[in-house]
Amino acid sequence: MSEFDLVIRGGTIVTAAETARGDIGVKDGRIVALAERLPAGARTVDAGGKLVLPGGVDSHCHIAQPKRGPTRNADSFETGTASALAGGTTSVICFSPQFRGEGLLDVLAGYEAAAAAGAMIDYSFHIVLTDPSDRVMQEELPGLIRRGFRSLKIYMAYDTSALSDVQILTVFALARAEGALVTVHAENHAAIMWLSQRLVETGHTAPRYHPWAKPIAVEREACHRVITLAELTDTPIQVFHVSGAESAAEIERAQARGLKVFGETCPQYLLLDETDLDKPGFEGAKLIFSPAARPKENQEALWRCIRRGVLDVVSSDHAPWVYDSRQGKKAHGDNAPFNQVPNGVPGLETRLPLLFSEGVVKGRIDLHTFVAVTATNPARIFGLHPRKGTLAVGADADIALWDPELTKQVRNADLHHAVDYTPYEGMSVTGWPVATFSRGEPVWDGRSVLARPGRGRLLLRGPYDHIRPAGMLPTPFDPVAGRMRG
Amino acid sequence: MSEFDLVIRGGTIVTAAETARGDIGVKDGRIVALAERLPAGARTVDAGGKLVLPGGVDSHCHIAQPKRGPTRNADSFETGTASALAGGTTSVICFSPQFRGEGLLDVLAGYEAAAAAGAMIDYSFHIVLTDPSDRVMQEELPGLIRRGFRSLKIYMAYDTSALSDVQILTVFALARAEGALVTVHAENHAAIMWLSQRLVETGHTAPRYHPWAKPIAVEREACHRVITLAELTDTPIQVFHVSGAESAAEIERAQARGLKVFGETCPQYLLLDETDLDKPGFEGAKLIFSPAARPKENQEALWRCIRRGVLDVVSSDHAPWVYDSRQGKKAHGDNAPFNQVPNGVPGLETRLPLLFSEGVVKGRIDLHTFVAVTATNPARIFGLHPRKGTLAVGADADIALWDPELTKQVRNADLHHAVDYTPYEGMSVTGWPVATFSRGEPVWDGRSVLARPGRGRLLLRGPYDHIRPAGMLPTPFDPVAGRMRG
Amino acid sequence: MSEFDLVIRGGTIVTAAETARGDIGVKDGRIVALAERLPAGARTVDAGGKLVLPGGVDSHCHIAQPKRGPTRNADSFETGTASALAGGTTSVICFSPQFRGEGLLDVLAGYEAAAAAGAMIDYSFHIVLTDPSDRVMQEELPGLIRRGFRSLKIYMAYDTSALSDVQILTVFALARAEGALVTVHAENHAAIMWLSQRLVETGHTAPRYHPWAKPIAVEREACHRVITLAELTDTPIQVFHVSGAESAAEIERAQARGLKVFGETCPQYLLLDETDLDKPGFEGAKLIFSPAARPKENQEALWRCIRRGVLDVVSSDHAPWVYDSRQGKKAHGDNAPFNQVPNGVPGLETRLPLLFSEGVVKGRIDLHTFVAVTATNPARIFGLHPRKGTLAVGADADIALWDPELTKQVRNADLHHAVDYTPYEGMSVTGWPVATFSRGEPVWDGRSVLARPGRGRLLLRGPYDHIRPAGMLPTPFDPVAGRMRG
Amino acid sequence: MSEFDLVIRGGTIVTAAETARGDIGVKDGRIVALAERLPAGARTVDAGGKLVLPGGVDSHCHIAQPKRGPTRNADSFETGTASALAGGTTSVICFSPQFRGEGLLDVLAGYEAAAAAGAMIDYSFHIVLTDPSDRVMQEELPGLIRRGFRSLKIYMAYDTSALSDVQILTVFALARAEGALVTVHAENHAAIMWLSQRLVETGHTAPRYHPWAKPIAVEREACHRVITLAELTDTPIQVFHVSGAESAAEIERAQARGLKVFGETCPQYLLLDETDLDKPGFEGAKLIFSPAARPKENQEALWRCIRRGVLDVVSSDHAPWVYDSRQGKKAHGDNAPFNQVPNGVPGLETRLPLLFSEGVVKGRIDLHTFVAVTATNPARIFGLHPRKGTLAVGADADIALWDPELTKQVRNADLHHAVDYTPYEGMSVTGWPVATFSRGEPVWDGRSVLARPGRGRLLLRGPYDHIRPAGMLPTPFDPVAGRMRG
Repeated sequence: MSEFDLVIRGGTIVTAAETARGDIGVKDGRIVALAERLPAGARTVDAGGKLVLPGGVDSHCHIAQPKRGPTRNADSFETGTASALAGGTTSVICFSPQFRGEGLLDVLAGYEAAAAAGAMIDYSFHIVLTDPSDRVMQEELPGLIRRGFRSLKIYMAYDTSALSDVQILTVFALARAEGALVTVHAENHAAIMWLSQRLVETGHTAPRYHPWAKPIAVEREACHRVITLAELTDTPIQVFHVSGAESAAEIERAQARGLKVFGETCPQYLLLDETDLDKPGFEGAKLIFSPAARPKENQEALWRCIRRGVLDVVSSDHAPWVYDSRQGKKAHGDNAPFNQVPNGVPGLETRLPLLFSEGVVKGRIDLHTFVAVTATNPARIFGLHPRKGTLAVGADADIALWDPELTKQVRNADLHHAVDYTPYEGMSVTGWPVATFSRGEPVWDGRSVLARPGRGRLLLRGPYDHIRPAGMLPTPFDPVAGRMRG
Repeated sequence: MSEFDLVIRGGTIVTAAETARGDIGVKDGRIVALAERLPAGARTVDAGGKLVLPGGVDSHCHIAQPKRGPTRNADSFETGTASALAGGTTSVICFSPQFRGEGLLDVLAGYEAAAAAGAMIDYSFHIVLTDPSDRVMQEELPGLIRRGFRSLKIYMAYDTSALSDVQILTVFALARAEGALVTVHAENHAAIMWLSQRLVETGHTAPRYHPWAKPIAVEREACHRVITLAELTDTPIQVFHVSGAESAAEIERAQARGLKVFGETCPQYLLLDETDLDKPGFEGAKLIFSPAARPKENQEALWRCIRRGVLDVVSSDHAPWVYDSRQGKKAHGDNAPFNQVPNGVPGLETRLPLLFSEGVVKGRIDLHTFVAVTATNPARIFGLHPRKGTLAVGADADIALWDPELTKQVRNADLHHAVDYTPYEGMSVTGWPVATFSRGEPVWDGRSVLARPGRGRLLLRGPYDHIRPAGMLPTPFDPVAGRMRG
Repeated sequence: MSEFDLVIRGGTIVTAAETARGDIGVKDGRIVALAERLPAGARTVDAGGKLVLPGGVDSHCHIAQPKRGPTRNADSFETGTASALAGGTTSVICFSPQFRGEGLLDVLAGYEAAAAAGAMIDYSFHIVLTDPSDRVMQEELPGLIRRGFRSLKIYMAYDTSALSDVQILTVFALARAEGALVTVHAENHAAIMWLSQRLVETGHTAPRYHPWAKPIAVEREACHRVITLAELTDTPIQVFHVSGAESAAEIERAQARGLKVFGETCPQYLLLDETDLDKPGFEGAKLIFSPAARPKENQEALWRCIRRGVLDVVSSDHAPWVYDSRQGKKAHGDNAPFNQVPNGVPGLETRLPLLFSEGVVKGRIDLHTFVAVTATNPARIFGLHPRKGTLAVGADADIALWDPELTKQVRNADLHHAVDYTPYEGMSVTGWPVATFSRGEPVWDGRSVLARPGRGRLLLRGPYDHIRPAGMLPTPFDPVAGRMRG
Repeated sequence: MSEFDLVIRGGTIVTAAETARGDIGVKDGRIVALAERLPAGARTVDAGGKLVLPGGVDSHCHIAQPKRGPTRNADSFETGTASALAGGTTSVICFSPQFRGEGLLDVLAGYEAAAAAGAMIDYSFHIVLTDPSDRVMQEELPGLIRRGFRSLKIYMAYDTSALSDVQILTVFALARAEGALVTVHAENHAAIMWLSQRLVETGHTAPRYHPWAKPIAVEREACHRVITLAELTDTPIQVFHVSGAESAAEIERAQARGLKVFGETCPQYLLLDETDLDKPGFEGAKLIFSPAARPKENQEALWRCIRRGVLDVVSSDHAPWVYDSRQGKKAHGDNAPFNQVPNGVPGLETRLPLLFSEGVVKGRIDLHTFVAVTATNPARIFGLHPRKGTLAVGADADIALWDPELTKQVRNADLHHAVDYTPYEGMSVTGWPVATFSRGEPVWDGRSVLARPGRGRLLLRGPYDHIRPAGMLPTPFDPVAGRMRG
């Protein structure tokens, strides 16, 4: 056993379920041994006093989107993944977003090429469906799912992307039949449009009115609706970026009935609130994201949902729009009404430190829950586990060496994304990665990005437990199978 | 005080809140005295051993609809109201249903004329909106509401009538601004269409599959959605014909939050269940109504909701389609698939006896609740109270003399509607009206209809408590008023 | 019909369900006619511009208690009932509280004698059981119930009165078997004792710590427990003075399961909050009552429960302890620790005006709900209806003439009880009785008490609907009947 | 690394969170390496095709109880632990039950001595408090907790053991102050006594009436009550043997509020139902356990609670009463009334196979949940983790080698306990341990018990996460600390 390429020695190894003291031995990019004491490897890293964590899995980040149109994410796969690994994240699931009229294969080819050239860590894609035409559904999607793209994304909001209920049912039926999990942006599009129009036409255009155009009820409604549609087809889904406690309650009710409904939230809903949009001038536009920031008291309710497993993933929903740019937040002018501002905030690099500092250090969640919601659970839900998201024999050696006591202020200047701001500027954060390894290779040493663009690999995913139906339907007829149930 | 036109003597006078023994004195069509003992009137009726109840108010019945197209309700205003009064009902609220492209005024004019010619009892109309165009909303509807048509009806289902969420918000905003209550057929249209298609294309076309195309979840979803839309605009609504306990639970949750959401159910949901559709040949089509019949165990849950006031109206949803007719149930053939069969069952005449027999006699509800849900509550909710729905000084003398011990089998041959069946054929029912009075005039004597077609009057309704907003909105902005809240 | 003893002319007659304009005719103490226009009576009162309401029924007031021991209610039946009628209340249900070791008959005889001599309005008694010995239960209680004392009261708190769970079950079984409704003071005695001790021994003795010795959870626990015991025996109960929204939620859950569980609250829980106890010196002792005052935000939740019928009675829980007296609040000294201060506040006279002003005038409840919760519902629940609690032919002519626009400040000097304070001193209140009639006799004219002590009559109560079991038991065995269920 | 004492080679290693293929290396009784491939050890076991699981932790089993009195558990520590290890369980937490009047130290000394002499696997004790006298609480218990007995058990039922609410509060306060977790037998004693008496005195004495004496409501009540008491003191508790879905719902409500309330259930509640007691003669007595067996439909609700983590431990509640013995089920005669029959069923050996077969094989829970609820979670909750309950570097080498496809019928003749029956006789079960290791030593080879009595070690437990308070109290006063909260 002298043949380890890498040994990480003497750290506190933490997984979603366990804490152990010992060494990790890596060979050919995978963990081949966990032991009290291993012989030195070709490279040996001292982890004394550090936590050895599975590298983060960020299952919700926008990179280099879209491939056409006037606006554009600032982050390329190069800067996006650099930012990820500097924050301790070693896998990302990005999006391959279809514009209406486009074919999925063409779109994906573009994103695959960009990622292959730029990505510094491993990646996969959610296939975004905005136009589930017969052609796309029959000729393209089944093959893509079988090839290993086992997660779809649909929108219930936005003019250019919202699917109708019939389209959602069609997508759900195909997802269940072929074996894919559907992620959902759940907000009632009509209500948002109607409220936005009433606000804007009465002169309430500043960024701080953005949350009023999409109150929690708008999200709660869409959650209940999409859960019902999933119930009618027995399709597993994940509700993205749950912002309101009422919405989480709908998810919990579904889980209690036995449905396979998963819920995700993001640091912005745990750390920011609606008053943060109330800034002079157009500054509040930096915090325009959807669903919107909520009242302060909503935050503790979300933490409770995380502790109890109602919400079991915390992703970034990284959306790298430059503030001071016609490709970004100012796409429609320096003082555009809130409903014309591109939605989203950057967060790939800060996700883990923020959650560690506000969650673990402040005692809201324990260390195992931290690992679970940032790495193990997203890996499981999206079919990357046990290759990703854990520290176990046979897993990829994607590892974050974590200093739980290192305190730094968040400064955008220190971050590696291509965005000109972070919504957390100046926040004091305890707990940062001091080294990151991707498949056993050092990619971050606490100061510098060490990885080469293009070294990241595409992660294809076979069938797995979470995409199996729950076996519950409201009537004896199975509309997906088109026959009576067993 | 010798001048009473009518004295009803010695009965047990029952209202939603009280039971008293005594006489009722009527003058000029109105109740002018309730007393232990009144002198004889021009006419004196002995009510000894009988219950003296407010005549029923049926706030949900289809008569002579539609005015064009191949299908047609069998009941004219003449037969429909004859059937009503023979069953103890003295006021009906019917529909003035707009076809898309039509103007509301023209449509209403037709129904008003028909009712004026044929109605034997007093009546009003819900204005059905299937096409809330700018013209209709701006030029027609406000005037109609102010004229006294203070209830609107919208559909969330059916190809030719379902409104989109944006249209619903538009209707809600105008209803609140002008002062009208909106009634809602709440089922998710898309889900029904999708499920129906899957059933039909796999050969499941018999009537008994109708409930599988619209499981309770489809109704629960629409309830939650329309309640959310009402919450966003602070508009009072009534959910029509609530069939499932889960849907009623959504209404209860809304009520608990303080919203003005009312719920109605119908005898068919309390007495019939989904197994009743499982009949040889096309017979099950007689029981195709929407929402559909539910599992048996759902019935007691609905009774509990009635007892607790969660559902506070029991109407008939009278839909007089002849079974054996190309204008009725067989419009699309003798064995048309379930989704081409006109929806609905007749029930105007049997509503009160069925509810009395199954509710009061069997101890599920008390007598006051019976009066409340069949007369007083609908009168209140639709602005007819205190003129209708009660026995009080000043009220119209709309009275049903009730024999609580009279037991008869329901036979369609005995009913006065123009339909060739009743879904309750052969059921033994205890409690029938032995006389009915409309504005003091005898219109039913237990055997014969005594009323003249055209004697009924149009009931216009001024502003009233139930149409006032609850004062609850999710944000400081009032989108209906277009400004910050007080 | 010229023979009316009294005609109340031209008022707005309001009951729990109706509003009518007209006259009321009274003969021999009972209402014999309601009419648009009656001839003058021996006495005719002009009610123009006034509301004509059923006199209030206060089903929870302590008068002249206890008959022995150092402390003593300041109010005799004379002052207590004077205070009641001056506030528009015409019936009271007081208590006949057993001390341990005492016989019920002896105790009741004392209270009956005192009431017969002093009461100015009609009255009844709840039989308080603190010592349900075999003798009491077998030899005394059945006879008392049959004689017409169909309500019992038990305590779950206080050293000298708390019953054990076994005793409660015994009482419930007898109540159901004989036909009585059991009212319950629901707080967990052990928890209160334990918390009080911890507070007092650490020096937290001021009145403002009283609510900390009995947080809402202590009430919620007892509610859930006593409901369970009622469920095991199928016994109808009313939970007295519900103070916390969480406790009301337990009651609602029980009602939703179909159990006969009623809930009462009092003005002090709707108008006062825990900060009101935080006064200099011993002043806070004036507001020591149990359950304790709650956080401010709890109040609106209680109003919502009243609107929805979860809590359907608002009584006073009048407890006339003089503040500055060794018989009252200072029984154990001028600065006794909170747990040695007699519990309770006076409220018989202010109950109706406070609820009208804060409820009806401020739009929290409508006028019918006001009448229902203050008169009709308590009359029904305790078997006094239809004799009391309504304005209907045949009812006792217990009537409050109400000026809905009269605004006055509450001043203890104006009240008729024998207590030296009111917790509502200085509060501006709109809506007061300008005349009160008891069985047709004027007893209050807006300035002076006109009634003679001893004119009040004992109200005995026969079996009635609310004391009938719900017919729900958790197993096939009926433990009260001692055999399998029907 | 040739120095392993034991290598388990080529198995599928399963923990609560992970599945990995590889070898486990053991040295000095602990796991020192997990690797893809290890060199052979002093002993090498081929685990090909087998699951390698953490040995089960049974945190609820009665052995050799009580030390005095007429009845007596059939199992000594020798037979009890033999039975455990033959079923794949490697740690047990038994009881040291105080009789009233006894000192804890004396009692524990007796059980410690017996266990030291007989136990074949490691063990600890819950300290049972039936008499929390001042002496016991002040002089004995704090020292015991500090010594490492960090779990207490209290009863809310049984004449000889039920604590009063005040006693429970006293125990909770001390537990929180000293750092111990309290387990609770939660049933309302008074209700059980009262119902039992009614049943027995009316001749309903057969074993099948046992569940009627303790319906689910009796458990639900006690759950809510003890949760409230824990809420008032902020003390972590575990509710033992939750049998009813309604009771689990109370636990879930508490968890949702943020309280530290854990819930355990047992195989008998998942596999047996109340009809199983309905046997000829006295046979049903074999299935008298408390809480009682429930209706069949209750079982799936419990499985759902396990899946969702509401109930996170499945223990045996092993209670080895011989059926045909005056020391066991027939202590009070061959046909004693149900309420005189010793409560409990044996289950140490069958716990894991039954749960695997009915849970994992039938698809109700996944393999990780199986490991979690039978080993990892109880180890965590009772402070044995990470030494017990998992397969990780540093953990004791307590391992069950599991054949997931081995199907056998349960036969009492094959079991190793000293009881003359098993309630699962004849049940076909798939999944059995084919070898068990305790601290690296083989103790079971699928056919024979290999362990020496007395080799088991006492497990003392230091402070750990689950005994820390949640930090939630209903008022600003902390009654345990006796001062205002931080």
